[in-house]
Amino acid sequence: MLHLAAPTRADWVDQATADPETLLLDHAHCERKAAGTALNLLFRYGDQAYLQRPLSELAREELEHFELVMGVMDSRGWSFRKLQAGGYGGRLMQAVRRGEPRRFLDTLLCCALIEARSCERMKLLSEAFVDLDPELAELYRSLLASEARHFSLYTDLATHRFGRDAVRERLAELSAHESKVLAELATENRPMRMHS
Amino acid sequence: MLHLAAPTRADWVDQATADPETLLLDHAHCERKAAGTALNLLFRYGDQAYLQRPLSELAREELEHFELVMGVMDSRGWSFRKLQAGGYGGRLMQAVRRGEPRRFLDTLLCCALIEARSCERMKLLSEAFVDLDPELAELYRSLLASEARHFSLYTDLATHRFGRDAVRERLAELSAHESKVLAELATENRPMRMHS
Repeated sequence: MLHLAAPTRADWVDQATADPETLLLDHAHCERKAAGTALNLLFRYGDQAYLQRPLSELAREELEHFELVMGVMDSRGWSFRKLQAGGYGGRLMQAVRRGEPRRFLDTLLCCALIEARSCERMKLLSEAFVDLDPELAELYRSLLASEARHFSLYTDLATHRFGRDAVRERLAELSAHESKVLAELATENRPMRMHS
Repeated sequence: MLHLAAPTRADWVDQATADPETLLLDHAHCERKAAGTALNLLFRYGDQAYLQRPLSELAREELEHFELVMGVMDSRGWSFRKLQAGGYGGRLMQAVRRGEPRRFLDTLLCCALIEARSCERMKLLSEAFVDLDPELAELYRSLLASEARHFSLYTDLATHRFGRDAVRERLAELSAHESKVLAELATENRPMRMHS
């Protein structure tokens, strides 16, 4: 349903649950970044009226989640601060082709895949934290449905503009790329991130 | 209370109420732009934790208002589309000094002044539309308190970081600049905008 080409490798969950402070800090950054990306799309494609309301609502929801995650961090005395990016987003977006309208299609589908991967991983986290840290298990259980909804929103917007066949074909290519990016990052001994 | 150096000139209200479609279209753009500016500040000053929650909440509220104004436009068959900027924001921001932390102070106070001017004008609109267009009178009556709150938020953030005296002094200078920008735009026969 999420169109991911490969599942998350088993050791990511162990790494993530071993360092919840870094996980939540990176997660807060991811939510803020997702809001920024949605807003950038609104400005870049400001002439496409059908985008405006759904992406505005999505950006608001990402910001709500940003505040929610910061709230959990605050309650544990974990401060929000800068964090070096893990490289996933930048490397994923290298597949975005130049020139419109291909750039628009690819950006929507890369956004969809980030949401899909987040959804898959939040499901894993909600299960792994059940005994370790019930508050975090509940946090991730409560968020994963939104991620799935956001995946559908991005693919729906792409389908509205480009049609079902073009979306299916390009999503398969980008999904293979997304799994390859994660496999590469894993061989490079990068620090743990939501998308490492 | 809003620290504006000069009130809005009398003929602006007549121009604005004579073309509610352009007024609302520009207003929708203003709300979206305000959300973008708040989010840019979040990213640019990502190491300043005290900014994060208030500016995230503010960005969400601007997006809610963006959707609200688009809703009124939709109900009247007015489509959201691109609109040439009126020049106010760009010219106001020319007063932002380079180099930190002055750039940060000036940006916060310019944002505060935009909110202050919006508040003043929405008050005028809420009164002018009472008989002409009660729905728009109510729209502007419902929004002006948020604009005043946003003005206070930006000046409070500036005071938190720079102290009361530095804020008072620079706000007086930028406020004089803001009124001068509006006076200049008025002599240039620019099209009517929320901040023309």
